[in-house]
Amino acid sequence: MKVSVLTDIKKVEEQERDIPAIRRDEVLIKVLHCGVCGSDVHYYEHGRIGDFVVEKPMILGHECGGEIVEVGDGVKGLEKGDLVAVEPGYPCGKCEFCKTGRYHLCPDVVFLATPPYDGAFAEYIRYPADMVYRLPDTMDTVEGALIEPLCVGLHAAEQSEGKVGQTAAILGSGCIGLCTLMALKAMGICTVYVVDVIEKRLQMAKELGASAVIHGREQNAEEAIMELTQGKGVDLVFETAGTEFTTKQTAKLVKRGGTVVLVGMAANPVFPYDFGTLMSKEAKLHTVFRYKNLYPTAIELVSSGKIPVKKIVTDTYEFSRIGEALEDSIHRKDEMVKAVIRM
Amino acid sequence: MKVSVLTDIKKVEEQERDIPAIRRDEVLIKVLHCGVCGSDVHYYEHGRIGDFVVEKPMILGHECGGEIVEVGDGVKGLEKGDLVAVEPGYPCGKCEFCKTGRYHLCPDVVFLATPPYDGAFAEYIRYPADMVYRLPDTMDTVEGALIEPLCVGLHAAEQSEGKVGQTAAILGSGCIGLCTLMALKAMGICTVYVVDVIEKRLQMAKELGASAVIHGREQNAEEAIMELTQGKGVDLVFETAGTEFTTKQTAKLVKRGGTVVLVGMAANPVFPYDFGTLMSKEAKLHTVFRYKNLYPTAIELVSSGKIPVKKIVTDTYEFSRIGEALEDSIHRKDEMVKAVIRM
Amino acid sequence: MKVSVLTDIKKVEEQERDIPAIRRDEVLIKVLHCGVCGSDVHYYEHGRIGDFVVEKPMILGHECGGEIVEVGDGVKGLEKGDLVAVEPGYPCGKCEFCKTGRYHLCPDVVFLATPPYDGAFAEYIRYPADMVYRLPDTMDTVEGALIEPLCVGLHAAEQSEGKVGQTAAILGSGCIGLCTLMALKAMGICTVYVVDVIEKRLQMAKELGASAVIHGREQNAEEAIMELTQGKGVDLVFETAGTEFTTKQTAKLVKRGGTVVLVGMAANPVFPYDFGTLMSKEAKLHTVFRYKNLYPTAIELVSSGKIPVKKIVTDTYEFSRIGEALEDSIHRKDEMVKAVIRM
Amino acid sequence: MKVSVLTDIKKVEEQERDIPAIRRDEVLIKVLHCGVCGSDVHYYEHGRIGDFVVEKPMILGHECGGEIVEVGDGVKGLEKGDLVAVEPGYPCGKCEFCKTGRYHLCPDVVFLATPPYDGAFAEYIRYPADMVYRLPDTMDTVEGALIEPLCVGLHAAEQSEGKVGQTAAILGSGCIGLCTLMALKAMGICTVYVVDVIEKRLQMAKELGASAVIHGREQNAEEAIMELTQGKGVDLVFETAGTEFTTKQTAKLVKRGGTVVLVGMAANPVFPYDFGTLMSKEAKLHTVFRYKNLYPTAIELVSSGKIPVKKIVTDTYEFSRIGEALEDSIHRKDEMVKAVIRM
Repeated sequence: MKVSVLTDIKKVEEQERDIPAIRRDEVLIKVLHCGVCGSDVHYYEHGRIGDFVVEKPMILGHECGGEIVEVGDGVKGLEKGDLVAVEPGYPCGKCEFCKTGRYHLCPDVVFLATPPYDGAFAEYIRYPADMVYRLPDTMDTVEGALIEPLCVGLHAAEQSEGKVGQTAAILGSGCIGLCTLMALKAMGICTVYVVDVIEKRLQMAKELGASAVIHGREQNAEEAIMELTQGKGVDLVFETAGTEFTTKQTAKLVKRGGTVVLVGMAANPVFPYDFGTLMSKEAKLHTVFRYKNLYPTAIELVSSGKIPVKKIVTDTYEFSRIGEALEDSIHRKDEMVKAVIRM
Repeated sequence: MKVSVLTDIKKVEEQERDIPAIRRDEVLIKVLHCGVCGSDVHYYEHGRIGDFVVEKPMILGHECGGEIVEVGDGVKGLEKGDLVAVEPGYPCGKCEFCKTGRYHLCPDVVFLATPPYDGAFAEYIRYPADMVYRLPDTMDTVEGALIEPLCVGLHAAEQSEGKVGQTAAILGSGCIGLCTLMALKAMGICTVYVVDVIEKRLQMAKELGASAVIHGREQNAEEAIMELTQGKGVDLVFETAGTEFTTKQTAKLVKRGGTVVLVGMAANPVFPYDFGTLMSKEAKLHTVFRYKNLYPTAIELVSSGKIPVKKIVTDTYEFSRIGEALEDSIHRKDEMVKAVIRM
Repeated sequence: MKVSVLTDIKKVEEQERDIPAIRRDEVLIKVLHCGVCGSDVHYYEHGRIGDFVVEKPMILGHECGGEIVEVGDGVKGLEKGDLVAVEPGYPCGKCEFCKTGRYHLCPDVVFLATPPYDGAFAEYIRYPADMVYRLPDTMDTVEGALIEPLCVGLHAAEQSEGKVGQTAAILGSGCIGLCTLMALKAMGICTVYVVDVIEKRLQMAKELGASAVIHGREQNAEEAIMELTQGKGVDLVFETAGTEFTTKQTAKLVKRGGTVVLVGMAANPVFPYDFGTLMSKEAKLHTVFRYKNLYPTAIELVSSGKIPVKKIVTDTYEFSRIGEALEDSIHRKDEMVKAVIRM
Repeated sequence: MKVSVLTDIKKVEEQERDIPAIRRDEVLIKVLHCGVCGSDVHYYEHGRIGDFVVEKPMILGHECGGEIVEVGDGVKGLEKGDLVAVEPGYPCGKCEFCKTGRYHLCPDVVFLATPPYDGAFAEYIRYPADMVYRLPDTMDTVEGALIEPLCVGLHAAEQSEGKVGQTAAILGSGCIGLCTLMALKAMGICTVYVVDVIEKRLQMAKELGASAVIHGREQNAEEAIMELTQGKGVDLVFETAGTEFTTKQTAKLVKRGGTVVLVGMAANPVFPYDFGTLMSKEAKLHTVFRYKNLYPTAIELVSSGKIPVKKIVTDTYEFSRIGEALEDSIHRKDEMVKAVIRM
């Protein structure tokens, strides 16, 4: 089978590999669509993310929708021909984090396209069946691939402990910011303000239901949101831009008793923060690391029409153009929100 | 001013009263619309609800939308001419329930149209300003009056501790059942099955987004829901019909680890229940008594268009026809879902 | 090795079996102490509990402390010679209940001494290492065996969502009632009233820190608790006696906004209940099915001295006297609280 | 009556004032003991705390226990002669924060000894009865005065959402650190490590049940705690020292999925923090602003003997020596933990 391998910084090449043999609790999946995530781009550009270093050639890609072509003997509930979404992190199942339902914090998780594990920019992958989710007939594998970033948005919404009727601001309107927006709207958070510095993304936020969008270079976002909220701030602030500047804004923007959720991580994640402002409001600051137990929910929200996740896809590339997709993700940020590879 | 007084069982008459004088923290409201609630009908028909007995002539009505015509000196944030919704229970503010935010459980609450307190079937009422909520320009006072039952639905949803992506069943599709349905849909509960025995109500549930509706006389509701859920049951079961029969069904319908919410109270609320089934699933049973802290949320959900609350109104009566409205509520159940008085 | 087999109703006999061979993720445990649980007694006396029917000879016993005598190749963190407690339910690890941390609700759980699985009244058992917990040096295997019922008490306390400073009543002062008492006291619930009809058990409750004990035959428990609480009732009511009579009392005893927790299941678990009283207080009713994620907590509470769990043991029997232990559990209820088998 | 007035920075003088007249919902309290809080010392030394500036002579003191000498006509449940503790913040009762039970966040709260409101270093104070709590016969007014800081500790514990069996570290072992320690122990948090740089305070922490104490100058606290937890960190980290150095340590010390609680505020509360470390563990950061709904709980924990709050008092001063008490609080930190004024 064909795979796309990151062989060096900024270098991906097509190679041939054997189709993997499955075990009895696994399925073999023909990958049909795979999203390009910021982390794929980061490994491509820098060869590492924090302590995770690409030390040998690695296959990228972990946002994956496909079709089941073989089913292990011990698998129930999945059949050949099913279209599926794949949850890319496989936990140990035995540690305290797994046992308490927080398997995303399992220290032994095997995560696609996170060194040293290969990802899904491949014709086929094998995967444990209990983390493979059948898509209803109304969904396709582009949507299947997008379940992954949508789960990040849903998990961010969940980490906020927000509830119907509250107000929110999202800083950053890229793929994850928009997925967070869609998640919040689906949960009944009516008032969501979105801040970004790229016009196209703000346009998209508006289309997806943002109550107001704020261009962070043209307006002072703090002042704008304070005015929109009569000086109260918002119950929930989501930082998805991953910058020091926007992270610092969160202390000011959050309402008394509200919650800040950090979703994006800044390149240098150590910087000054106004804890005094946070404390005087008894605000909380929560963080997001991937997601857990959300694939079925995300699939239901998309299949029921509540979340039009495909709207965030701006660019589709054939398998042979993965390198181009990665390059474009670096250089065409103004036009591109989400790229998907058609395998 | 004119008021409508319940002078005896099944007897309401129009009387004249003085327009009440307001205190400095109160507003005077010209009542424009007032819903007819099941409790109004119950006091009209039986002169009591449980321990609450109508011992002297009483004004009914507690679902109230109107216009402010006078504002006390100490009131901030409300002005003459504002259209408003009135939260009909006024708590003491000092007991442990009030202090912990559960003011609906305050033993000293003054609740409109609950003996010995008069209600809002009157031209004017005075009310403490902190429980009077301004309606946005996009809303009218029919919607204002409907905020009250909608809050019951929202509170039921909240008591279920349900979350986005879960499944639900609602037993009973009257006003409160439909309000619960709208609340659940707004919160991202995609799959909601509704059971009733009145065709018109099921039709309405369907229009308001029920995933499936089940006619409890034509189908075995338990079997139908078990089939729809592949034998698992639903995460959340709401009993809003207030019957022994449907309350008993909840133990069977709820999924392992799920939650039953009792909203409707049966006329004789002591009857056999299958605790064994509930316990073997470690299911929870929660109850609903009115609501708390939900008026602003309900108003936002209606004004943002998320909840089309007015759709449940089937009948509107002039002030002079309140008696007829109460009679119809008893005798025309097949055709009537929600009656509203235009004052 | 020797095992004790339930061959017929009220008939246990000693048999010889092969010592089981372990798999790579398992350990072999020499059982040193094993508690006699109400469910063991019930299978002994009736051959079934609800839908669980003993259809072939079965080894009873699931409250088990022992010593590791062999360790599988894949096991980390446990060594030969370790004294351990064994969590007797082993879940599938792959279903939605396991994934969300509620593995005790896993429909495929393998539970010791629950048909068709053998239990721990045996010289040796093999067990998956991730459900075997090392005891600190300060603990012995009697305490190790008692971790199981203590976890039921801790889980009951957890299901109540109680918190420091609240008040509680426990109906039933047998093993589980006392374990619930110890759990509540450890969590800072200072005021706990205990009701039973056996003097010895009340005596024990008093010693373990009950604020007041009430003899249910000599006093009207409802009146007594209402008097103790100035008519308010208690925040938390735990039913551990497993009778219709005490379960019915819970509606009355619980305070406005409080929570009832059903721990014991009545022999015939369908009976009338006063839902009206529960609903008028917006009280909750929660249930308990085994426990989850509590072994490490229970071990820490015992080893730190916070919970003197061994105090509930009234009788110890040698392996050869298991039949007698079971008979005594039926006939000597007035004197016996908890029996433990020394293997 | 005599009062002690802060007339200028570092200057308190005794003055005469009229005994205040009470309103119908108030009581008049003869103050018997009043604690010296860090905020009193701060106003004394700097004339301000953040935005709160002492602009005219002000009476300090807000940790207050006394005896009721007069009762308003509308007051129930309190009598002349009752010994009481006074909750020093009185909220508006009408805003969204009050209505939702978070009255400590009420923007219109009137707080004793917070400009422009006078405090309780006075012979008598009048106070609304619903925030005055009767002490049981087993308690004295020193304990009554200490209820206030104990509530901060209890609220910190509550904000951590910690539960029985978890592990904790407390950075700072002054009055609030020790109150947090006592609160955690009462709630069943067995393992609590305490860090400070003053020997006497560590000694006290040890006596109050700390599992281990760490001298932050003699040991590297991060390394010490990592070693104690086998490299995992603790579930809950409480920062009570109010320094940049210790606040920064929290990101490292907290366990995967754990919670940091900021209780102390650094003099300059804007400084670099390692959000990357926090995010990679999906840890939460909560903050503490005073407390809410905890006076009855604190009183019960002290009166039941669970919390020996008086042990933290190291120094008692007569009313005439308040100036000395404030000076000593600045200069004798090595020897003094908590000073109380005997009025």
